[in-house]
Amino acid sequence: MTALTGQTLRANLKEQALLEEAMALAGWDQLTGMPQASGDFRAELQSYLASRYLAVATGEAAQELNKYFGQPTHLAELSTDDQALFKRFQSDYVRDASIPKAEYEAFQRLASQGQDAWTAARQADDYQLYAPVLAKLIQAKRQFIRYWRKDEATPYDVLLNQFEPGLTVDKLDRIFDQLKTGIADIRQQLKDDGVEPDASFLQRTVAVDKQRAYVWEAIQRLGYDAQKGRLDDTIHPFMQDLNRNDARITTRWSPNDYQMAILGVYHEAGHGLFAQNIDSKWDYTPFNKGIAMSIHESQSLFNEVMIGRSKDFWTSEFPRLQAAWPAALGDIELEQFYRGWMKTAPTLIRTEADPLTYPLHIIIRYEIEKALFNDDLPVADLEKLWNDKYEAYLGVRPDSALTGILQDIHWASGDFGYFPSYALGHLYAAQFLQAMEKELPVKDLLQAGNLAPLIAWRREHVWQYGASKTPAEILQTATGESLQPSYWLKLQTERYADVYQL
Amino acid sequence: MTALTGQTLRANLKEQALLEEAMALAGWDQLTGMPQASGDFRAELQSYLASRYLAVATGEAAQELNKYFGQPTHLAELSTDDQALFKRFQSDYVRDASIPKAEYEAFQRLASQGQDAWTAARQADDYQLYAPVLAKLIQAKRQFIRYWRKDEATPYDVLLNQFEPGLTVDKLDRIFDQLKTGIADIRQQLKDDGVEPDASFLQRTVAVDKQRAYVWEAIQRLGYDAQKGRLDDTIHPFMQDLNRNDARITTRWSPNDYQMAILGVYHEAGHGLFAQNIDSKWDYTPFNKGIAMSIHESQSLFNEVMIGRSKDFWTSEFPRLQAAWPAALGDIELEQFYRGWMKTAPTLIRTEADPLTYPLHIIIRYEIEKALFNDDLPVADLEKLWNDKYEAYLGVRPDSALTGILQDIHWASGDFGYFPSYALGHLYAAQFLQAMEKELPVKDLLQAGNLAPLIAWRREHVWQYGASKTPAEILQTATGESLQPSYWLKLQTERYADVYQL
Repeated sequence: MTALTGQTLRANLKEQALLEEAMALAGWDQLTGMPQASGDFRAELQSYLASRYLAVATGEAAQELNKYFGQPTHLAELSTDDQALFKRFQSDYVRDASIPKAEYEAFQRLASQGQDAWTAARQADDYQLYAPVLAKLIQAKRQFIRYWRKDEATPYDVLLNQFEPGLTVDKLDRIFDQLKTGIADIRQQLKDDGVEPDASFLQRTVAVDKQRAYVWEAIQRLGYDAQKGRLDDTIHPFMQDLNRNDARITTRWSPNDYQMAILGVYHEAGHGLFAQNIDSKWDYTPFNKGIAMSIHESQSLFNEVMIGRSKDFWTSEFPRLQAAWPAALGDIELEQFYRGWMKTAPTLIRTEADPLTYPLHIIIRYEIEKALFNDDLPVADLEKLWNDKYEAYLGVRPDSALTGILQDIHWASGDFGYFPSYALGHLYAAQFLQAMEKELPVKDLLQAGNLAPLIAWRREHVWQYGASKTPAEILQTATGESLQPSYWLKLQTERYADVYQL
Repeated sequence: MTALTGQTLRANLKEQALLEEAMALAGWDQLTGMPQASGDFRAELQSYLASRYLAVATGEAAQELNKYFGQPTHLAELSTDDQALFKRFQSDYVRDASIPKAEYEAFQRLASQGQDAWTAARQADDYQLYAPVLAKLIQAKRQFIRYWRKDEATPYDVLLNQFEPGLTVDKLDRIFDQLKTGIADIRQQLKDDGVEPDASFLQRTVAVDKQRAYVWEAIQRLGYDAQKGRLDDTIHPFMQDLNRNDARITTRWSPNDYQMAILGVYHEAGHGLFAQNIDSKWDYTPFNKGIAMSIHESQSLFNEVMIGRSKDFWTSEFPRLQAAWPAALGDIELEQFYRGWMKTAPTLIRTEADPLTYPLHIIIRYEIEKALFNDDLPVADLEKLWNDKYEAYLGVRPDSALTGILQDIHWASGDFGYFPSYALGHLYAAQFLQAMEKELPVKDLLQAGNLAPLIAWRREHVWQYGASKTPAEILQTATGESLQPSYWLKLQTERYADVYQL
């Protein structure tokens, strides 16, 4: 066996990263104005880049790296950083190489068909058009789980663990039970004793270019570096980082819903901040790109919910917003603005949910996924189960598949086990805020509009690490504790008690 | 030797084309809003993609293809189309593989340094900061010519032939002599007997969004397919085709120079039309992408000059322009508009030249390049020679390097022998128009604003072929003649006699 070095490993990771960067650019472009007729050509390009990527990540050179540094004596030849990178490389390699190539490719095709079927089903508002492909996707994923499974307690644990190392059904059941009860309690109290805010001023017209000008300035106050990003229009907002100096955000606009743009762009800028502030030593490595979704989401939600839904923040920010849009907000008082801004109401659509009800949307999806993979729930029964759960947990029942089970693309793309990360992001964000408050006068800083110390805290405790630590490690180091949903519940209880004048 | 097939060849060409598409997207993005801080990362990505491209185009598999189909008996196994593709593959292969890899990479680095030095020299307005790197680039290119040269009469012929198959110094000397004399005659006549038009209304303010709305509609009337393209802002306008369903154009704007946007966007849309209308059988082959620049330019110039400077066209188009911008053009008569639109005056900057004086800018560059490669002209003398020639041919002398020798980036990027194609594009466009007039009532069609037959003619005679025929072949087939500069001179003579009321 030829002697390999850290440089050999880094070169392989760099080639993977460069191919990922090309795919990321092509993907961003596809969603931000690529000519309509060009879809088939783009699919061909992405398919080529993906096959190159797989060849680099699992080909002969990768096999040799895996074999060589898989031996402890050789692993010890690497620097500490490179050892960590190898472990990540190895687990990705094992995940990708353990699926027979033909099955992997068949799954890719199925996922592509799934998205087409999902689109067709949405157009016809008919879940049954999509159910057969969904069933095949689930079948294929169950087979993958058999290849992947080691000592995980249940099949669904295998998927959870891929998105969030160490996460289990057992842990999530406990966390989500606590949330379900806690949220139900808050909602009951608001219903019984709360004073409903008036939020009608949120529908006042603000021209899109005025919205754009305000949010672009505002996110720079939140730390987003305009030299390392851009803001484009799209249908489903996202952040795409090509590298730490190019973390692009996107949004959609409505002249009569400026809250959507403000919170949406704060959110994506939070993802962008993470990407822009990863230590440069992780350039062209999986620690720069492969960040667990829960921890990434905790940073977008920190911007959107911890800051963007904070009364202290709006004490300093609302006068700026008023100055930017005097016609729409000149006659609104801060107190009135904040109460309307925070109004909570159940929705059918996850992406339109407010922070209080959002976790319930995730819990519904989690319970269904768990039933699919651990209890072999038949796919034909999904729609009814979905609707029943919405009625039970949120008190609203979809009267169409469009506003029900067809609203998310995740399953159609073959992504299962991904949803729980969204809820974890909420919980992490609240726990980070609580830890920050022990070290910094957060309330005063927000009221003064001095966000720099909050930005520095997150850079130091979260962003710089990229994916070099697991979410659990980052949380433990930054807050001194493992995940405690109580911080999130306490925050929401206090905020809504204030807003609803309990 | 293993038996290879047309499919093996096509697969290699397709991989080249897909890598080119990725590079094209990354290049377009870099010039249309990529975050400023991301330059180094983008250079790294492009360098990786270029090295992959070279590996595919000249690597082991390419060597085998070249060896195998290089034998006439094997070549005969291919379809006619595939034989043509192999010949193109082979000539590209020989060109790229005949340069030692180390020298090729050194040249790439030098070209990158050249662009940096050019930028720095422009900032300081000092040619001498850039002259040393330019000298090295020329030295390296002279060495390449030694590798490439077969039976070409002079070293510079080697470069000309690469950009335009069959083009020689001998031919160009004759063509450019004819142009020099002809243009001088027209300009002298206009000076002696012409009535100078008033073009002051061209500086009237038209808001950029109004300019954008008009040109976007106008180019669709000229045949540009909006489903297969987009229009973005940039500094130096260009068209970038990723594939035939994605031919993007870019432009720059000034509220007080709408002529720049109109003619600029017509021009780029002409390039876009070519790309959008190549026969789909050439998808993922060099016949889709590697079109000679002269023939491509003939199509952009057909839009810009043959149509965009035609009085017949403006007969139908000017009322539309007036309706779009009543405040700026409501009080202008068609005749007055057209005379101002056509006003000619010498400029120092090539890209700002009008159609009459444009070829002189090219002739100056041609004469200098020829002297550099055939007479070993010292690089230190270039600036004085440049200025002397501008004074002699155009009657204007640059008083700074910025408006003189530092205006073009081509040489800094290592591109020599490229400029003549621009002038050829003008001549081809006029010859195509003349041939079209034999078959179609062009004057009536333009006056009626019925451009469809002109579009169909160009699709049939030019666009569909992509690069599967040489410019000379396309010209001969479409017009029945080899290149005749007299058509261009006749057209300009007539147009300017009309405008200047001779």
